[in-house]
Order: sequence, then C-alpha cells, then structure tokens
Amino acid sequence: MSQRRIAVLAHEKFPGGAKTALGVMRYSDDETVAVIDRDTAGDRVADHETTVPDAPIVDSFDAVEGAVDALLIGIAPIGGGFDDSWRSDVVAALEQGVDVVAGLHYFLSEDEEFAALAAEHGAELHDVRKPHPGIGVAEGRSADIDAEVVLTVGTDCSVGKMTATCELVDTAQKMGIDAGFIPTGQTGIMIAGWGNPVDRVVSDFTAGAVEEMLLEKGDEYDVLFVEGQGSIIHPAYSAVTCGILHGAMADKLVLCHEAGREVVHGYEETVLPPVSEYVDLYESLAAPVHETEVVGGAINTSQIETDDSATAAVEEYADEIGGTATDPIRFGCEELVEELVGEFK
Amino acid sequence: MSQRRIAVLAHEKFPGGAKTALGVMRYSDDETVAVIDRDTAGDRVADHETTVPDAPIVDSFDAVEGAVDALLIGIAPIGGGFDDSWRSDVVAALEQGVDVVAGLHYFLSEDEEFAALAAEHGAELHDVRKPHPGIGVAEGRSADIDAEVVLTVGTDCSVGKMTATCELVDTAQKMGIDAGFIPTGQTGIMIAGWGNPVDRVVSDFTAGAVEEMLLEKGDEYDVLFVEGQGSIIHPAYSAVTCGILHGAMADKLVLCHEAGREVVHGYEETVLPPVSEYVDLYESLAAPVHETEVVGGAINTSQIETDDSATAAVEEYADEIGGTATDPIRFGCEELVEELVGEFK
Repeated sequence: MSQRRIAVLAHEKFPGGAKTALGVMRYSDDETVAVIDRDTAGDRVADHETTVPDAPIVDSFDAVEGAVDALLIGIAPIGGGFDDSWRSDVVAALEQGVDVVAGLHYFLSEDEEFAALAAEHGAELHDVRKPHPGIGVAEGRSADIDAEVVLTVGTDCSVGKMTATCELVDTAQKMGIDAGFIPTGQTGIMIAGWGNPVDRVVSDFTAGAVEEMLLEKGDEYDVLFVEGQGSIIHPAYSAVTCGILHGAMADKLVLCHEAGREVVHGYEETVLPPVSEYVDLYESLAAPVHETEVVGGAINTSQIETDDSATAAVEEYADEIGGTATDPIRFGCEELVEELVGEFK
Repeated sequence: MSQRRIAVLAHEKFPGGAKTALGVMRYSDDETVAVIDRDTAGDRVADHETTVPDAPIVDSFDAVEGAVDALLIGIAPIGGGFDDSWRSDVVAALEQGVDVVAGLHYFLSEDEEFAALAAEHGAELHDVRKPHPGIGVAEGRSADIDAEVVLTVGTDCSVGKMTATCELVDTAQKMGIDAGFIPTGQTGIMIAGWGNPVDRVVSDFTAGAVEEMLLEKGDEYDVLFVEGQGSIIHPAYSAVTCGILHGAMADKLVLCHEAGREVVHGYEETVLPPVSEYVDLYESLAAPVHETEVVGGAINTSQIETDDSATAAVEEYADEIGGTATDPIRFGCEELVEELVGEFK
C-alpha cells in the first residue's frame, strides 16, 4: 500500500506497553508524524525508544502538527476493549475527515457516535480484527502456490513471532529476494495494510483464513513469510496455532522463543517442554498434511543485558533446535534467511 | 432436560442422508412422533431403519398427528444453508406455537418471517449452532473439576465420534456409572438439549468453549464423556480438534476410526497416517497441558458385511492402538467402558 502519514495513539503506554505502536512504527511503510501519549507528551520518541524512527510525542490528536491520513490505535488493553479516555482523540480525527485504524475486539465501526461522524465527514473506520464475511473452510490448496512458504511458530505467545517474521521479510528483501509478508494478527495486519485476523474467525475457518491469503499472494512472490500465532501447546490458543500450521502448508518453519521463558505466559502451571520436543511436535503434526522442517530459530534476548550472554543464549538455542539461530533484532538474520531461502537470491 | 415430543424434518434424505435426525432419534430423551420426508411419506421409520424407535413418516408438518412440542431440522446440506422447500413446514409449526430447533449455519432466528411468526405465536427458535456471547478465552482450569474426563478423538471427520460418545455414555449409565455427556457439535447439542457449538466460536475461544462446559458440569458427574470433532491432521478442521484436546484436559482418550478409510474425507490428497502415529500425536500434543493416554478405540464397521470380518477389523484395530477396541453399535462397548472408567461403578 502507498505510504500514509499516521498519528499513533498510545496513551500512558508508550513505549513499553505499546507493542502495536512499536511494530507499526518499525515495520510499516507508513510515516509516523506523531505519537499521542498524555504521559510522555513533550518528549520525543527518540528519548524513549531508539529502534523506531523519531517523532514528536503530543498529548492529543488536536496537538498533532501537519497533515495526517490516519489515526492508528497503537495499544490494546487486556480483553481488547476501547478505553473511553481515547474517545476525544478519535472524535477529533473523524471530525477532520481522518481515517481511524484499530485492532480491538471492540469494533469502532459499531460505535454509534464514531459511525455517524465517519459518515458525516467522509472518514473510514478500519477494524482490522473484523474478519470479512467471505472466509470459509480450507480446501488444502496452499501447497499449490508457486512461492516457497516459511512459517514462524513459537514456544509461547508474545515471544516475538511477529517481529521475527518482519525482520525475516525485510532482511530477505535487502538481500534481493522477492519476499512477501502474510499477516495473521492485528499488528501484522496494520503493518501490512491488509490481512485476515486468524484468531478472530470462526474456528472451523481458521486454516481457511490462512489459505485464502496464500492463494491470493502465492504467485506474486518467490517467498512468503507467514506470521505465526500462539503456540501448539498453549492451553487457550493452540487451536489458532494448529489451524495456521495446517492452513499454511509451510515448506519450512522458524521456531521462536524468548530466552529465559520457562512457563506459559499467564498459565504458570503449564511448563514449556524442551525445545527439541517443540521441533518434534510441529514437524510430526504438520507432516500428514504437508511435510515441513524446523530449519532455524529466532530467540528474543531483550531481557539479557550483555551481548556475550545473549550470544551464548543464541548458541545454546541453535544446538537445541539443531539448526541456525539468531536474535534478529540484536544480531540480524542474514544467515538464517540464507539458510531458509538463499536459493532465491 | 424433560422429554419433548418432536417432529423431525428430513426431506428427501431419510434415513441415509439424515445423520442429525438419526442421532437425535437414537440418543436423545425426546420422543419422535413423526419424521417429515416427502420422498418416503406413507412408510414407517422401521421400513428403513431399525436402530431407532419406530414412527410414522409424513410429507409435511401439517400431516403430523398429535401434540408436538418442537420441530427439529434433522438434515444439514453442505454449507449449512436453509433449503427453501422446508419453509412451509417451519411456518406451519410456528403458526401453531411450536418451537423450531436447527443446527444450520443459517440462523432461523435471523430470518425475518420466522422471527415475526415466532414472536406472534409465542414459539421459540433455537439455533443450536449460534454461540452464546459470553464464551471467552480458556483459563486452563478443566483439570480442576472432580469428574474423570474421557474425550473421543478421531482419525478423520465423520468416523463416528458422536455416536461412540453417546454409546459410551449410555453404556456407562446402564452399568451404574454416574456419566454425563459434553456435546460440542450441532447433533450432540440437539441430543443433549444444551451445549456450545465449538466449531462455530471465535477461533481464540475454541478451548474456552469446551472448558466452560466442563466447569459447569464438572461436579455433577463422576465421569464426563466429551464429544470430539474432526481430526488432529485434518487440513481444514484440525484447529477445532486441537482446541478441544487442550480445552478438555482429558484424562483418557478413545480413538475413533472408520474401517477401510484411507484418505481424509473430501481431501483425497491427505493420506491417513498409521493408527499408532495418531496415538503418538494425540498423546504428545496433549501432554504439555495435561497428561493423557489413548486407552482404547471405537471403529465403525458399518461398511463391513459379515460379523466375522468386522470382528477381525476390530481385533486388528485393537492391536494397532495397543488397547481395547470395539464397534460400539455392532458389538457394544461394556468392555471399553470397564477399561476406561470401571472404577466408578
């Protein structure tokens, strides 16, 4: 999609609690003209976070300077609700005819005030987590596409699958590979500007929601990197993981993990099995539908202070996987891309 | 639930193509006062099918004799649509104040004519495939309930999981075991008169939809038999299977199969792996969330003519599983129940 100028709402949460904001600022083609956060207003983004482009931080949409194409809700409270303290910013944007993009479970397009303002001022409300009504049952056809398919899978939620996927795509493109990104969650969809929210479709259509995207993009790229979700042993979200695994019919897998994670986040009674067990589980579960292999791993070492310790963690992880591993943010991922899809350079 | 007197609509499909009708007639507490099928009208149920209670077959709802509490749609076309040739029967029922129960993807309660008639005549429209809005994310709590949980899992769709589950419940109850049934699909929900349509909830809530039912019934029974769905290697429906597996946190599994099935129904490129591989997959995938074991198997031998050949198929299947096996319809399932939950007699 063409580059838009966006304002990113992240009240009281920037940058630590604003995963969506950081993801979009880091990876999308959009230009962030301002972050809206009443707590850090007056500072600049660079005062807090150096891994994303700099921008001013302001306290409200009205304080954003210059033309803006869209206001993007860059935070998601637990449960995906809409915080009414954001209402005045959304109203201000709509009154200026500015589109609003959100990935909440609460759909802005079903809010009477927002819907009326959008209609009145010719602005659009994009609820990226609202599946389009045409999604249906998978037909087992993803393997028919021309592109090589790489899927990120995880040992848990929130270990960095979306980040790893975006880094793999960016690095592959820089290496001259014709690589595309298949988003499956709200942040990925905001980054890409399109996509099916796989965790929000009817459960019978989980694999179908992935297949539809692969069939749509399959002949446009040499390589497609599919953003994974959850973990195959997650007590709540494994259904989504399994549906993506079989729906994507991936040729290669990248196992994502956070260094030091020992139990499932929020489900402390569920201990993470050894990494080698994940490799076996993902490969043996995928095989009857489409043979695949865990070729490498991405490990999030952001909680490890020194590069030496992080390097040690990466090396240990590579051994456990029996493949190439890296922390793509800390150490880059050229070698992993080479290993995965080097033949497409 | 209390016994209702029901008319079962199965136009042009009774009995072979009316899986829902047969399931409800065989296992629910409801009394079937008539089957409605314009093709076989004038015959009796017993002329076509001897495994369910006999009843007259008539050509329309108006031809049903005696009092009726509910009209039940006992057939489901591919895609779950509503066939307009059934409309006059639904209208006739509603005009007499008779409730209508359906498990279609098309919701009768959202049909303007039906909704208006139901309101006017004080009848209820039950769309059993419409999830209630309170279903949410699983909390990993199913193992906290008192009841022993047995889950049926399958090598494919349509191999007899629902039938096996109902036979296990009925047999256990006859053996004096305080056993309950946890339905997860439309026919099971019609039989039980309650339940969450797990294949129709938001994908993130798949495990949660099962957990909610187990938490609700967990202290009322010694043993709960959970109806499984799909298969863990199904190209389209594995998400639902995986969500049920982790959401149920079952203590024991029963692997269901149809004798002679070699490829996934409707996905002929996907060859069924050996039975022993299913056992490994289900057990190893479940273990990180809750340790479980495939204790036995149910094999559908309805396509095998002689009892000798069926017995041979059962014995071979038992060997492959490494446990007790049976065709519960043909040979009963007392031994399997004894093996699974004999200690609760």
